[in-house]
Amino acid sequence: MHMDIEEVPLDVPKTKREIYLKNYMEITRESGKLMLFAGDQKVEHLNDDFYGEGIPEDDANPEHFFEIASKAKIGVFATQLGLIARYGMDYRNVPYLVKINSKTNLVKTSQADPYSNLWYDVGQIVRFKENSGFNILGVGYTLYLGSEFEAEMLVQAAQVVYDAHQHGLVTVLWIYPRGKAVKDEKNPHLIAGATGVGVCLGTDFVKVLYPEKEGADSAEVFKEAIKAAGRTKVVCAGGSRDEVDDFLRKLHNQIHISGAMGSATGRNIHQKPLDEAVRMCNAIYAVTIEDATVEEALKIYKGE
Amino acid sequence: MHMDIEEVPLDVPKTKREIYLKNYMEITRESGKLMLFAGDQKVEHLNDDFYGEGIPEDDANPEHFFEIASKAKIGVFATQLGLIARYGMDYRNVPYLVKINSKTNLVKTSQADPYSNLWYDVGQIVRFKENSGFNILGVGYTLYLGSEFEAEMLVQAAQVVYDAHQHGLVTVLWIYPRGKAVKDEKNPHLIAGATGVGVCLGTDFVKVLYPEKEGADSAEVFKEAIKAAGRTKVVCAGGSRDEVDDFLRKLHNQIHISGAMGSATGRNIHQKPLDEAVRMCNAIYAVTIEDATVEEALKIYKGE
Amino acid sequence: MHMDIEEVPLDVPKTKREIYLKNYMEITRESGKLMLFAGDQKVEHLNDDFYGEGIPEDDANPEHFFEIASKAKIGVFATQLGLIARYGMDYRNVPYLVKINSKTNLVKTSQADPYSNLWYDVGQIVRFKENSGFNILGVGYTLYLGSEFEAEMLVQAAQVVYDAHQHGLVTVLWIYPRGKAVKDEKNPHLIAGATGVGVCLGTDFVKVLYPEKEGADSAEVFKEAIKAAGRTKVVCAGGSRDEVDDFLRKLHNQIHISGAMGSATGRNIHQKPLDEAVRMCNAIYAVTIEDATVEEALKIYKGE
Amino acid sequence: MHMDIEEVPLDVPKTKREIYLKNYMEITRESGKLMLFAGDQKVEHLNDDFYGEGIPEDDANPEHFFEIASKAKIGVFATQLGLIARYGMDYRNVPYLVKINSKTNLVKTSQADPYSNLWYDVGQIVRFKENSGFNILGVGYTLYLGSEFEAEMLVQAAQVVYDAHQHGLVTVLWIYPRGKAVKDEKNPHLIAGATGVGVCLGTDFVKVLYPEKEGADSAEVFKEAIKAAGRTKVVCAGGSRDEVDDFLRKLHNQIHISGAMGSATGRNIHQKPLDEAVRMCNAIYAVTIEDATVEEALKIYKGE
Amino acid sequence: MHMDIEEVPLDVPKTKREIYLKNYMEITRESGKLMLFAGDQKVEHLNDDFYGEGIPEDDANPEHFFEIASKAKIGVFATQLGLIARYGMDYRNVPYLVKINSKTNLVKTSQADPYSNLWYDVGQIVRFKENSGFNILGVGYTLYLGSEFEAEMLVQAAQVVYDAHQHGLVTVLWIYPRGKAVKDEKNPHLIAGATGVGVCLGTDFVKVLYPEKEGADSAEVFKEAIKAAGRTKVVCAGGSRDEVDDFLRKLHNQIHISGAMGSATGRNIHQKPLDEAVRMCNAIYAVTIEDATVEEALKIYKGE
Repeated sequence: MHMDIEEVPLDVPKTKREIYLKNYMEITRESGKLMLFAGDQKVEHLNDDFYGEGIPEDDANPEHFFEIASKAKIGVFATQLGLIARYGMDYRNVPYLVKINSKTNLVKTSQADPYSNLWYDVGQIVRFKENSGFNILGVGYTLYLGSEFEAEMLVQAAQVVYDAHQHGLVTVLWIYPRGKAVKDEKNPHLIAGATGVGVCLGTDFVKVLYPEKEGADSAEVFKEAIKAAGRTKVVCAGGSRDEVDDFLRKLHNQIHISGAMGSATGRNIHQKPLDEAVRMCNAIYAVTIEDATVEEALKIYKGE
Repeated sequence: MHMDIEEVPLDVPKTKREIYLKNYMEITRESGKLMLFAGDQKVEHLNDDFYGEGIPEDDANPEHFFEIASKAKIGVFATQLGLIARYGMDYRNVPYLVKINSKTNLVKTSQADPYSNLWYDVGQIVRFKENSGFNILGVGYTLYLGSEFEAEMLVQAAQVVYDAHQHGLVTVLWIYPRGKAVKDEKNPHLIAGATGVGVCLGTDFVKVLYPEKEGADSAEVFKEAIKAAGRTKVVCAGGSRDEVDDFLRKLHNQIHISGAMGSATGRNIHQKPLDEAVRMCNAIYAVTIEDATVEEALKIYKGE
Repeated sequence: MHMDIEEVPLDVPKTKREIYLKNYMEITRESGKLMLFAGDQKVEHLNDDFYGEGIPEDDANPEHFFEIASKAKIGVFATQLGLIARYGMDYRNVPYLVKINSKTNLVKTSQADPYSNLWYDVGQIVRFKENSGFNILGVGYTLYLGSEFEAEMLVQAAQVVYDAHQHGLVTVLWIYPRGKAVKDEKNPHLIAGATGVGVCLGTDFVKVLYPEKEGADSAEVFKEAIKAAGRTKVVCAGGSRDEVDDFLRKLHNQIHISGAMGSATGRNIHQKPLDEAVRMCNAIYAVTIEDATVEEALKIYKGE
Repeated sequence: MHMDIEEVPLDVPKTKREIYLKNYMEITRESGKLMLFAGDQKVEHLNDDFYGEGIPEDDANPEHFFEIASKAKIGVFATQLGLIARYGMDYRNVPYLVKINSKTNLVKTSQADPYSNLWYDVGQIVRFKENSGFNILGVGYTLYLGSEFEAEMLVQAAQVVYDAHQHGLVTVLWIYPRGKAVKDEKNPHLIAGATGVGVCLGTDFVKVLYPEKEGADSAEVFKEAIKAAGRTKVVCAGGSRDEVDDFLRKLHNQIHISGAMGSATGRNIHQKPLDEAVRMCNAIYAVTIEDATVEEALKIYKGE
Repeated sequence: MHMDIEEVPLDVPKTKREIYLKNYMEITRESGKLMLFAGDQKVEHLNDDFYGEGIPEDDANPEHFFEIASKAKIGVFATQLGLIARYGMDYRNVPYLVKINSKTNLVKTSQADPYSNLWYDVGQIVRFKENSGFNILGVGYTLYLGSEFEAEMLVQAAQVVYDAHQHGLVTVLWIYPRGKAVKDEKNPHLIAGATGVGVCLGTDFVKVLYPEKEGADSAEVFKEAIKAAGRTKVVCAGGSRDEVDDFLRKLHNQIHISGAMGSATGRNIHQKPLDEAVRMCNAIYAVTIEDATVEEALKIYKGE
């Protein structure tokens, strides 16, 4: 599924439409769908995801991310600029998306509403891309709706999308309702609100939590969010580690039942030894980009 | 009713007066009155206005806005830049007003006073207009008087009007008294205060809630606000969904009794299937711009 | 009483001293004294001063200000830029002072300390003056000493004076002690503190409340404030509506007993029908600028 | 005691070292010591220091400052830019230091921690100096350590010193520990902390309160602060009005016992009639700059 | 251990890679390891570390720092710009790192979460380096994770690293979890979180507290943090004064057991008379850079 030059959002200037289109085609591997390997957790969750019971030793080293991203099939690897600056020279084949804001998990919502601040302006990312020669296809920003800092973050999100498009970069917004005002972060209607905000901000992709509602099928109730997003494409956060077949089935449902246009996976990939992580990545890629069935993907995962 | 070049507000520079006049004539369809189709609710109300009991399925898709705006008679369609950037290429005949700030409804006033922050500066809107070639006639900003963030928002509103006029764009301020200090948001005297602030800010149009006072006729008590606005023109927010004949009569009264110079309608238009929404739009247009009676407008609505 | 070029404050650059002097002579009508017609209340008091029992219908329309300012003798008419931009083209003979900050009266000090934020920078006022061709002689700024936002407002006041003088404009600071820390806003010693702050900020004029102290004659105790201001000239806010003869006598005392160098009057002028308002204005002008006695001024007011 | 070009702090650029040296030599009257006449109290204490029981009438007029500074021997007169702009043309022989931040005393620490905000940037002071032709030798900034606004003020202080040195101006930091966290503002160890912060900020002079500790000799315990300041020179704030002989003896001890490199005096000078104030100033100058004994200084004060 | 040009992080622009490499080689004395002499405590701890029982008199004078840094073997001396500006001309052989933010210890976490604000932007440091000719090799910034001001400080840290690398300077981040949300600042897993944040920010070195956990060997549990930092090198803060042999053994373990790539020592060096401080410095240098045993280092300390 191609994107035509006519479909390029028009906050991308004329002189950048070809570049945007090229970035878009590459980040979606010409499928129109996004397979995002999420690697921003070293800030977001500190070392909790990388060290401890049940986590293989490979994962303790940040280079694990890059080895996986380099050896597996992925759409794009999303992480902070600092990591890319220090490892990218040895992993030049990896397509990158710079996660442009981050916060730690130390201050809980019960103490203060979440605020994830913009670490760089997009111009700095563009200079970094030019100077390093890295294959940076886009930028990502996390927005907490319902936080008492929503006003500041909405502006930053709007500016990130506007500026990224000015430079032909693809955008992904992580939009999570969170704060003292938010009682049920996975409510399907609320998540549809979040994806609707995504399209109003003009982002290419919006990453949300998979909705949950008692007595309802998540794949079904997720459709509201897909519709609300309109031309902005929705991908689901992978969340905490799952059984592989459950995970792949859920992903397949998101795409084939709900209408999601991709996947965003972190812990379910990197919390595995390198070889297994690469196979897991390939399995997710197969479901997301190559229209594989769950069974086909499981075979890839198992190396069969 | 034309505007003469002599009536152009003088924060519009000499070199932009013709452009301002052209935008003003076009946004008022040469009637001096504004029929604004309001479509900023995907952020302001999240998905509440677009999905649920009694809301037709058409409305779940953001494209519904654009189909209506494209097929119906309107003065201008007001929405966020992101939506315009993603749909505008297929709806180039639509006249747009960029709603330049927005907030969600998650944090209630009981938790924190409202603050709707400026997503873009006007220069970015102007670059977007030039680059996209879209027919952007103006910008809109929401200001909450009586909020503890009033000071910041007054500055943003003043700057939006100043900068928009510098570029020949028309301005609409949504001015709502809201916050812990505000006991009765629909008090006629308070709403007259709001329209008076509008003219002091130099806006072309101010959109307020229709006043309500026990024992008083809204159309009558609304006159105070019209007078207080002086040369700034007042339009009323449509509010939640009404019976069509009640709605049109109220609108007719606002214009012909109170002296309002236009209308601003959202849910009463888009919460209808496409065909009905187009007819509703045309009916509102007829009352607002074409001096139709309520009965004539109802016929248009009914497709008679 | 002329101002010599040697007396021009030296934050006015050499190239602007002639312009400053011209503005200063004009705003004081070559008397060295300022008769300021204050018209910023549509924001400061919303519609309370313009509509209601005892207020003539003329006053409901913002144009009332301009009709008075145009027909009466005044030193300068102070109001917000937006109003000037929309009405000034029809009242080109009026000398204007742009009130550059304003707040509403909705949030009371018991809820939060007052903060009146700078709506424009002085450069924007200068561009507006050049573009419109209006006779803008100065700028005004309100500063609340003792507010928890004093620190921000002191900086804004200092910058307004500095920048205005850089462009040869005359400055008036409204300085009011206000906030939870202020027990008695009219205490003569506190008001002398306020005028002293005015001269430290380098303003040309400072407008304060007329002091009140039990058992003391206001005209006498006001002398402390006049002295504390040194070369900065002091004018008194008119306050709420008074009986005309009381008002004129108070004004005469302020000038001839206390040593005030002008007057600043709002409601006592505009809360009258046009013709009476013009006569009132002329009476105040006579006392302030033309050294009239109270009796002579009363005759002017009565049209005798 | 001269300063050699080799001792110029190296945040002064090469092209400005001669100018800095000239300013430094002049502000210390080639003695290496600073006699500062402090005149920023009209903001800091409002009119409390200038009017009331025991304060001579001369002091009510801000010109009193300038008359003293012009007629007496001083190192430098420190006050706000506004005052200098309005009086300086008549007192061109006075060496000035612009006090670049100030706050009033209305909000007490029990209500909110102190924050004194930067009124101008140093570039504005430099333009003022060039335009006015006034003999401005330096800038001064007050910093409240231990205030909840310490973080903002530390940045401002660092920037003021950096920028002033960039232009060859001398700097004085008033550093006072103050805020809810500070129990004993005059604790010698805490004041030594303050002077140590001064040298880390690179200021030329730091002005602190004279330490007090039960059972200890202030002149002795003050030595800790002098040492902690290293190459930054320490001067003591004069504080409230003292008996003249006590005051001069205290000053003599600060310099000859503690090792202070100057004095900063306000109320003990200006709260006297002009002639007496001039003699007091000369007495302080004699002790500070001319190595006079207390007895010699007292004779100067008495006009003998 | 050399760094190759290929290992230069790629936020360093091409034109600055040689300079960065030169700075990096020099700051690590071509060992790849950093011996940092920390001298920012005059702000961070006020005068507590420099005066009092058990502290030699030498330490009361800020010049003590420079004498040690000049006479001893060190990697780099870290302190505030102001101190360098005033003493550096006499200590031109010292390699400097500018500590670019600092706060005092007056406001405790129980009152308000810590915020250490950026005193200068990196461009100002670069101009200072060029103008002074001082051998400034890098910049340092303290970041408090878990503080309610974490969002602001993360941005400043990201900007400091980005900008420093743009100019070829080496970076050290002091990262300390601190604030009401942080219960155990020395928890090994939390400290591993901190070093992981360091690499995501792209810093060259991260300085953390030495972890402590009941029943665990610090040298062992510290390994988690070394791994989490990946290509960012970890150095340990020295902390309060220790017995010399204990201190050197701890340091040796950090490097040879845990895998730390350097040391950062303040009080354990400067709280000694000059000669002893120099020997202590040399002993630390020997362990850190010259692969000395604890016994060899102790001999150096003892001057044997």
